[in-house]
Amino acid sequence: MLIDCHGHFTTAPPALGRWRERQIRAFEESGARVSPDELHIEDQEITAAIEQGQLKLQVERGIDVALFSPGAGKMAHHHGDERTSLDWSRVSNDLIARVCRLFPERFVGVCQLPQSPGEALASSIRSSADELQRCVQESHFVGCLLNPDPSDGYWQAPPLTDKVYYPLYEKMVELDVPAMLHVAMSRNPAVQGTCAHYLAGDTAAFMQLCQSDLFRDFPTLKLVIPHGGGAVPYHWGRYRGFLQDQGRPPLEELLLKNVFFDTCVYHQRGMQLLVDVVPAENILFASEMIGAVRGVDPETGHRFDDTRYLLDSITALGDDDRQAIYGGNALRVFGRLEGVLASRATTAKEAVA
Amino acid sequence: MLIDCHGHFTTAPPALGRWRERQIRAFEESGARVSPDELHIEDQEITAAIEQGQLKLQVERGIDVALFSPGAGKMAHHHGDERTSLDWSRVSNDLIARVCRLFPERFVGVCQLPQSPGEALASSIRSSADELQRCVQESHFVGCLLNPDPSDGYWQAPPLTDKVYYPLYEKMVELDVPAMLHVAMSRNPAVQGTCAHYLAGDTAAFMQLCQSDLFRDFPTLKLVIPHGGGAVPYHWGRYRGFLQDQGRPPLEELLLKNVFFDTCVYHQRGMQLLVDVVPAENILFASEMIGAVRGVDPETGHRFDDTRYLLDSITALGDDDRQAIYGGNALRVFGRLEGVLASRATTAKEAVA
Repeated sequence: MLIDCHGHFTTAPPALGRWRERQIRAFEESGARVSPDELHIEDQEITAAIEQGQLKLQVERGIDVALFSPGAGKMAHHHGDERTSLDWSRVSNDLIARVCRLFPERFVGVCQLPQSPGEALASSIRSSADELQRCVQESHFVGCLLNPDPSDGYWQAPPLTDKVYYPLYEKMVELDVPAMLHVAMSRNPAVQGTCAHYLAGDTAAFMQLCQSDLFRDFPTLKLVIPHGGGAVPYHWGRYRGFLQDQGRPPLEELLLKNVFFDTCVYHQRGMQLLVDVVPAENILFASEMIGAVRGVDPETGHRFDDTRYLLDSITALGDDDRQAIYGGNALRVFGRLEGVLASRATTAKEAVA
Repeated sequence: MLIDCHGHFTTAPPALGRWRERQIRAFEESGARVSPDELHIEDQEITAAIEQGQLKLQVERGIDVALFSPGAGKMAHHHGDERTSLDWSRVSNDLIARVCRLFPERFVGVCQLPQSPGEALASSIRSSADELQRCVQESHFVGCLLNPDPSDGYWQAPPLTDKVYYPLYEKMVELDVPAMLHVAMSRNPAVQGTCAHYLAGDTAAFMQLCQSDLFRDFPTLKLVIPHGGGAVPYHWGRYRGFLQDQGRPPLEELLLKNVFFDTCVYHQRGMQLLVDVVPAENILFASEMIGAVRGVDPETGHRFDDTRYLLDSITALGDDDRQAIYGGNALRVFGRLEGVLASRATTAKEAVA
């Protein structure tokens, strides 16, 4: 089974973006709220967006199922206040839940969290635990996106290893749900989003974990670093050396039971480095589609984000490792996934019978 | 000739750090200044620090000469005001000049710039052009360190491609002196320095260049991205795809006549990726010593920062490419270097005769 652990509904019907714009404008102008009930999207709009977008590419590439979350950049946690992010998270997550109901064998939900920067951080993390629970219990989501920089480009929050995040981690452990550590947009003119803030965020988040003993407090907590781990695998020696200089445990012991990397690396040499450096059991297949890069690489004739093609072309990868990367690891890391897929397959079979 | 284009005087005599602490404290407490004349360091202290530190490693590794700058983290441009950074830059650069006079065939100077964040930015960039000129004319420096985040971890400045930086670029072009785009410390508790902020800074700075047409305005400006380019070579496909999606010129055309990467990557697989992905003419040998990582890699028995050993172990690298990376490119990129080395060799010969 080929599982893409990192897909976003970046092709959502335009009504979603218009609702969000109204929400932000109303709050900025007068502190007013826009009700989630004002958002109207028909099932057929969702179906069209998915069938012409993500599903089409999934079928072309032989991907069986995608763990599907709202557009990460559009989480944009800096806007408005705590309620703004809570309403927006619910709206976004409920739309993902509809995608999953319309395509139950193709998409499993991963939620955005109602994080807020500044003084609302602690309270917003408690709300995030609640929203996670709601999504898991009501809509069978299996993961969440945790933004290490809710200020969106200015790094105003404490590190993810700060105790302010512990209520969320407790809930994640209780529910057996991992987080992908994924920044949102950058509103910083010095730091572009998908090619700078995303990769910087991955790198900074990994280093926060290197400096802490978070997994002593949460031995079963699981975190996924997207975009191939940012700069981390390329600088694996730097991290090993840093930890050694500091008298800290090696990466294997300190992090690799809990931290995983996805395969969103868009050229063959980079992908080769990832699988050479990071143990196969710590790598999860992903394409980030439809995401940061959408064109066809003239050097290969495949889309840049066709990570299936890139991984297939690494012939030295053994069968067991390939199976693990393509799906086995996702089933292990996303502890609820196997159950969700099994129950949906049963439902589908019953529907046919 | 083996030229290390990225070395820092991180082993400077302790009096330097004590002067800097007094400078910061006096300004914070009362706005008072501490005169640079209050710093006293004997030649023999400098000689001892260098001979037991950088020079020892240079000799062991067969490195002929290092382009030598003040400790990058310690530039810490956020402290005090414009005058604080100007005094500190002069003190730091004058110490580098003394190293170069004491070891004229081993070290050539690269200066720190008196940058300041916030409202002082524009004025501080003009002072930076003056300080660069002073270092080049008085002490035969051949390069400078340009900090893309003078707020030290919060990214409060406009991108390096903003016109506010143009007076510095004009001076760099006039003097034929390149800049290494090197952040200083991080004072942000969420973003560690050497393994997060450094790499994030390299990545963000590269992306700023991707988004601009800076080199249309300055066709002969040369910039070096340290630490192997941060996340860039590992994500080369992402940058290629992004530029293509945006209808921008390819990397080769847009940047690679002006932008270079150093080899501060501390494991063999990472180094291999760098030389596989980036054209050899854009790679400059460097070790960042004595820098971020100081221990011996138990997997190789060599220090992590022994990039000479790592590069030597890449046997597929052709002789011409190896010569270019080890020194030829540095002589081309640092336009004044050959003249400085030649004049010092002549002086040394005259001294012997």
